[in-house]
Amino acid sequence: MKQSQLFTKTQKETPTGEVSTNAQYLIRAGFVSKELAGAYAFLPLGLRVINKISNIIREEMDAVGGQELLMTALQEKETWEKTGRWSDEVVDNWFKTSLKNGNEVGLGFSHEEPLAKLMKSYISSYKDLPIYVYQIQTKFRNESRAKSGLMRGREFFMKDFYSFSRGKVEHEIFYEKMKDVYMKVFDRLGMKDKTYLTISSGGSFSKYSYEFQTVSDAGEDIIYIIDENNKVAINKDDFNQEVLADFGLDVKEKDLPTKKSIEVGDIYSLGHKYSKAFNLTYKDEEGKEELVYMGSYGMSPSRLMGAVVELNNDEKGMIWPKTVAPFDIHLIAIDGGDQSIVERAESLYEVLQKQGFEVLYDNRSEKTAGEKLNDADLIGIPLRIIISKKTLAEDSVEVKERKGGEAVLIKINDLNNYLEKNVQ
Amino acid sequence: MKQSQLFTKTQKETPTGEVSTNAQYLIRAGFVSKELAGAYAFLPLGLRVINKISNIIREEMDAVGGQELLMTALQEKETWEKTGRWSDEVVDNWFKTSLKNGNEVGLGFSHEEPLAKLMKSYISSYKDLPIYVYQIQTKFRNESRAKSGLMRGREFFMKDFYSFSRGKVEHEIFYEKMKDVYMKVFDRLGMKDKTYLTISSGGSFSKYSYEFQTVSDAGEDIIYIIDENNKVAINKDDFNQEVLADFGLDVKEKDLPTKKSIEVGDIYSLGHKYSKAFNLTYKDEEGKEELVYMGSYGMSPSRLMGAVVELNNDEKGMIWPKTVAPFDIHLIAIDGGDQSIVERAESLYEVLQKQGFEVLYDNRSEKTAGEKLNDADLIGIPLRIIISKKTLAEDSVEVKERKGGEAVLIKINDLNNYLEKNVQ
Repeated sequence: MKQSQLFTKTQKETPTGEVSTNAQYLIRAGFVSKELAGAYAFLPLGLRVINKISNIIREEMDAVGGQELLMTALQEKETWEKTGRWSDEVVDNWFKTSLKNGNEVGLGFSHEEPLAKLMKSYISSYKDLPIYVYQIQTKFRNESRAKSGLMRGREFFMKDFYSFSRGKVEHEIFYEKMKDVYMKVFDRLGMKDKTYLTISSGGSFSKYSYEFQTVSDAGEDIIYIIDENNKVAINKDDFNQEVLADFGLDVKEKDLPTKKSIEVGDIYSLGHKYSKAFNLTYKDEEGKEELVYMGSYGMSPSRLMGAVVELNNDEKGMIWPKTVAPFDIHLIAIDGGDQSIVERAESLYEVLQKQGFEVLYDNRSEKTAGEKLNDADLIGIPLRIIISKKTLAEDSVEVKERKGGEAVLIKINDLNNYLEKNVQ
Repeated sequence: MKQSQLFTKTQKETPTGEVSTNAQYLIRAGFVSKELAGAYAFLPLGLRVINKISNIIREEMDAVGGQELLMTALQEKETWEKTGRWSDEVVDNWFKTSLKNGNEVGLGFSHEEPLAKLMKSYISSYKDLPIYVYQIQTKFRNESRAKSGLMRGREFFMKDFYSFSRGKVEHEIFYEKMKDVYMKVFDRLGMKDKTYLTISSGGSFSKYSYEFQTVSDAGEDIIYIIDENNKVAINKDDFNQEVLADFGLDVKEKDLPTKKSIEVGDIYSLGHKYSKAFNLTYKDEEGKEELVYMGSYGMSPSRLMGAVVELNNDEKGMIWPKTVAPFDIHLIAIDGGDQSIVERAESLYEVLQKQGFEVLYDNRSEKTAGEKLNDADLIGIPLRIIISKKTLAEDSVEVKERKGGEAVLIKINDLNNYLEKNVQ
């Protein structure tokens, strides 16, 4: 894409009211725009990133047999009353509104109930199971505070995956598999090394669940590191002698390192809680009616986008991992109005695109070299290629990785080789 | 995809409370599920169709320079008060709710206001214009009646495109171009021949706007056909002597054929209405401050999906056009438990997928041939390939188009040639 055609512009000033690094940089670079606290519009650069993150998640969910669907945001009261979760005392972050006929409806903060209800149409026999479904959907949660930019939203993207199994054993095998699947996603986002499988209180059905916590000073959580090698931790909120006993851990609180962290995913064994409420059953091999055993697996693409920025930035701006960068290459023409340089830049832009690279081409004639380089640092595309009078004098371009290292002159004829080795 | 792994099943019974053909067939075939009137979940087959429709629209919007973004559903009261559209007397289909601090928020039914507000950060000079942006987003409208299935929703997909131009002349040129772009989309959806550019009352700024109306008995609108060759009509609601005079039409009401139709798109010249409310201006070549001239262009992927079903069905089920079908080919094994036929079918399934075809492979061992064929007719994939003992006796498969025509035996060795000619 030509940068002259991109409608967004960078801004130097830190946006007012934003305390988080991710929101500050994402707004300054024109990736997002705040509509209200906790609700951000995704502008073209930001939408490219969120789509890449979503597609990575999609690939991994498809790989374990997940079938994608899309539930509605609007939710009927009757559905949620079956589990008691319609009550504002049980769920304190509902957004509720009403239809013209006065019927109350809520905006889905999660989708266990409507999915248990839906599956009644499709599950009757053990032969129908297991079923794995997921959606990547806009969720609404009426958070009282929303100050961490994309990391805690009132309106945000959620990937929520649900498993329907023939019992605890089948469930547990899949649940274990999902731990690896989640780590695979974090690996592709470049955050695996900082992410801990974290023991947490279980929610509504089982005694324990697991969170995935990524160490960062921007996090709202605190974890005790139990096992650095295997990356296991306990959420400080849930740390007590009982947990230690249940997991057979012989450690002392004072010896455990604590770290601030961002919750980047969670997985729950839901057991029969929802299937019981909706009488979601199947006939087993002997014709006996059994309740379906459920699990749910959450992960927010928009929170992950915020987390990626928190983990990858410096004083100049963002530093996107290759896998989720809005473009592979930021091509910058420093032409000083020299038409022959413009032509060489244009032609390089065409060639790079034909080779399959996603290129943001800074062809803005009214910007100085300094302005262009500052913008490139702020936007944070992994590889910067400068074409200028100076580089062309040596039949070269200047190539530099955003994450650091030297700028190097590469002969234009050798560029292809270089890129094949260094991009993707 | 193997049909044995698809969690949805077809149902024979017409779902209760659904009067529209599109909802009846889409629910029976497992494409969608009704959450509440006017709000449908998209199940795997339905999500594939909606994504294909959305991607066709995306390609055409990108082709005229549209930049995709994604605004928020949650909308602040203050933003909409600037144009008076917060009032329930002006806009009668708001869903409204409130934040924990008591601030009212609405769910966006359209996005002129937040976009005019957003663009103030990015438009200052004539050099910044024109700008074209669009989103494919979930919209919420509190409709008092919602009975046309996917065609009138309380929660639905909308593609809304907005143009920001340097004045009326620049706007008009683009506005004319968008008429063709819209027709191109309808052409790709196989509905161009039945779609009329329809004169309608102008909305808030200009005297007239245009709708695109597709002739169908399932439609809620009635149009007068003005020009059959050029496919021009007038919406009956807006038909009067003044319109005829304004468009220089020398016709008599009694001579004009009327037809029922579905509104499949609308385009508006918004002029300065929104830019004035937000003081969205640019400096022209002489440094003079001018208001930006806006246009908006709507089209709903989910309504289009409903319309496609209304236009393409028979008493057995749906008949998807190739461009938006959930799969290219429905491969059906009639094996009667014969493992050698199963193996041939599996291997054909693999080969077809490797050739790039999207294949739904009915490998369900517990279904009879009749059940499989009925399901295939209901689901409506354009091309059906049957592999059975009978066909294999002649080294062949039986190929039949869903839209009609004879079933033909094709030698397996010739299948590739046939498909290259007949699929996509």
